[in-house]
Amino acid sequence: MFIDTKKAREFCQRLFQAYGFSEEESVIISDVLIRADLYGIESHGIHRLIRYNDEITSGQVEINAKPEIVHETPVSACIEANKAMGQLTGVQAMKLAIQKAKAASCGMVTVRNSNHYGIAGYYTEMAAMEDLAGVCMTNTEAICVPTFGAQAMTGTNAIAFAMPAEPYNFSYDASTTIVPRGKLEVYRKNEMPLPDNWALDQNGKPSNDAALVIDNIIAKAGGGIAPLGGLGTLHGGHKGYGLSVIVDIFCAIFSGGLTSNYVNRKPDHTGICHYFMAFDYGIFGDKKNIKAILSKFLQELRDSKKAEGQSRIYTHGEMSSQMKSERENGQIPVNEKTFNEMRLLAEKMGVSFIV
Amino acid sequence: MFIDTKKAREFCQRLFQAYGFSEEESVIISDVLIRADLYGIESHGIHRLIRYNDEITSGQVEINAKPEIVHETPVSACIEANKAMGQLTGVQAMKLAIQKAKAASCGMVTVRNSNHYGIAGYYTEMAAMEDLAGVCMTNTEAICVPTFGAQAMTGTNAIAFAMPAEPYNFSYDASTTIVPRGKLEVYRKNEMPLPDNWALDQNGKPSNDAALVIDNIIAKAGGGIAPLGGLGTLHGGHKGYGLSVIVDIFCAIFSGGLTSNYVNRKPDHTGICHYFMAFDYGIFGDKKNIKAILSKFLQELRDSKKAEGQSRIYTHGEMSSQMKSERENGQIPVNEKTFNEMRLLAEKMGVSFIV
Repeated sequence: MFIDTKKAREFCQRLFQAYGFSEEESVIISDVLIRADLYGIESHGIHRLIRYNDEITSGQVEINAKPEIVHETPVSACIEANKAMGQLTGVQAMKLAIQKAKAASCGMVTVRNSNHYGIAGYYTEMAAMEDLAGVCMTNTEAICVPTFGAQAMTGTNAIAFAMPAEPYNFSYDASTTIVPRGKLEVYRKNEMPLPDNWALDQNGKPSNDAALVIDNIIAKAGGGIAPLGGLGTLHGGHKGYGLSVIVDIFCAIFSGGLTSNYVNRKPDHTGICHYFMAFDYGIFGDKKNIKAILSKFLQELRDSKKAEGQSRIYTHGEMSSQMKSERENGQIPVNEKTFNEMRLLAEKMGVSFIV
Repeated sequence: MFIDTKKAREFCQRLFQAYGFSEEESVIISDVLIRADLYGIESHGIHRLIRYNDEITSGQVEINAKPEIVHETPVSACIEANKAMGQLTGVQAMKLAIQKAKAASCGMVTVRNSNHYGIAGYYTEMAAMEDLAGVCMTNTEAICVPTFGAQAMTGTNAIAFAMPAEPYNFSYDASTTIVPRGKLEVYRKNEMPLPDNWALDQNGKPSNDAALVIDNIIAKAGGGIAPLGGLGTLHGGHKGYGLSVIVDIFCAIFSGGLTSNYVNRKPDHTGICHYFMAFDYGIFGDKKNIKAILSKFLQELRDSKKAEGQSRIYTHGEMSSQMKSERENGQIPVNEKTFNEMRLLAEKMGVSFIV
């Protein structure tokens, strides 16, 4: 089922204003959410409204939070978010990184005690829109088990990177786990065994049982998802494990906040941490030239020889950029469950639903 | 078989001086090489002496090259290496990045037209030794096939990151391919089929035939190694593919040099590009505190629950640091083939061998 993008956006804005956010804040939060749906990342779009509702009503998100800069240099800042909505601190932090990149070539901003901020790629695109390169990372509740471990210690811990290019920016945004938790939910729903190499039970043994793994994650009973590269070291799982630790270093260690293994341990406090970086790629040479040779390289990748049975090689950001163009003034898909949740939230918060 | 570390180092120095490098240069090159053996990364240590010999004698490496800074700002530089030995430009570039990090909090240096520089982790450790965080990447000859592709377009494209911690620095250094080419060589030598998900034939079909894949790589006949995450998208191969492209952006696009798909296309020119970054992590807060909470987090990872049958969880840099301590004033392993190659090089270059 599809709904009008403009109407979905307006509904989100009404809803967040009803929670008590200002009009300006509601516009920002809604823009981050809807962007995920425009990019085709439905797991991080309006599908999550119900979870944001829970985070707001449980006190994990403080509607009137005032984030503070607790440490600052010309090229950096550390922000104490004071439990603000993740999208609001996210946009604030990347704006600050961009401002510093414009003034001093490079800006790096860490954020502690924030909340889920949507897609990391939203913030790197903010940098790319200013003709800068952007990096963004976030930790989350622990879900990823270290190589040889039996206990989740790091989060899905996404890494995003964007660089301006023609006709599509290069825009990478991916978790450092082999799959995000949402993928396991799909297998559970369809009662299908998980592919090998994806997940572990509470004893650290490989498991194909989606329901068991998810229930264990929720109960913090042990086990979880493998890092990118899978279980053990044969397919490089130790590399994905290392990348997930790097994300925690940039987000939590550099901000003095909570590492993934302490995130979401209290009912009214997630403690999620982020990292934002923007830099002027003109510090290395002529920007027009750099952008041109990147565009050429990306085209070469897309034009390179396809595997038998494949008709297309994508570059990162291509698919989401095309989808955004199609959906921006059109419609976004929504599943029935999400649609019903949205209707319930409308009733609960006393705002008009999508008509 | 084992040889005395000190004697191996002195032999390397004699050898590189015999090629025409100065004493100081020979000390640097040998230190990078021997460090790989100290860390247990034998593929990048004295094992490679024969390949460096070939690169020097073929004219890929210019012994008297004078690298030039072609673009510079307070936080950045771009170096045209003019075909210098990779280890020499590598050390020069990271020294410059460190100098800029000390003066301006952050230094980023790109290098083009360099050569193989050994282990990326050597350079990030240079930053960590100065109590800075270090990032280093390098592209290589194309060996990695994009998701849905049949043609290698990016290299093994390593990413390294180091941060000071106690009792071991966090030190990550890994290729963005599922395995490096050396692993395939081991399977060929032992006449074993490759694990699924590692490699593709010239038509982009999954292949377990190590000999075929290696021969195709050497002949540039198509196919190659899968990115981290494997073939297709099921296990996240598109993530590894994206990371390998990011490495080429930082190394080759930002330096205006050759992307992996153009590297090593001429007999006397590799065109390898690198990226070096050092930054003062004190830009985010108190350095002692940051280092302490990182050390605590790494200890928590090592102490976390082990999978059944496993006795230890490592953090990145732990194993190499322990091995270095043991081997530094002792011995390093060397296989017979390498030992014989070293003897031949000694004869050829007229230097005394290890006695």
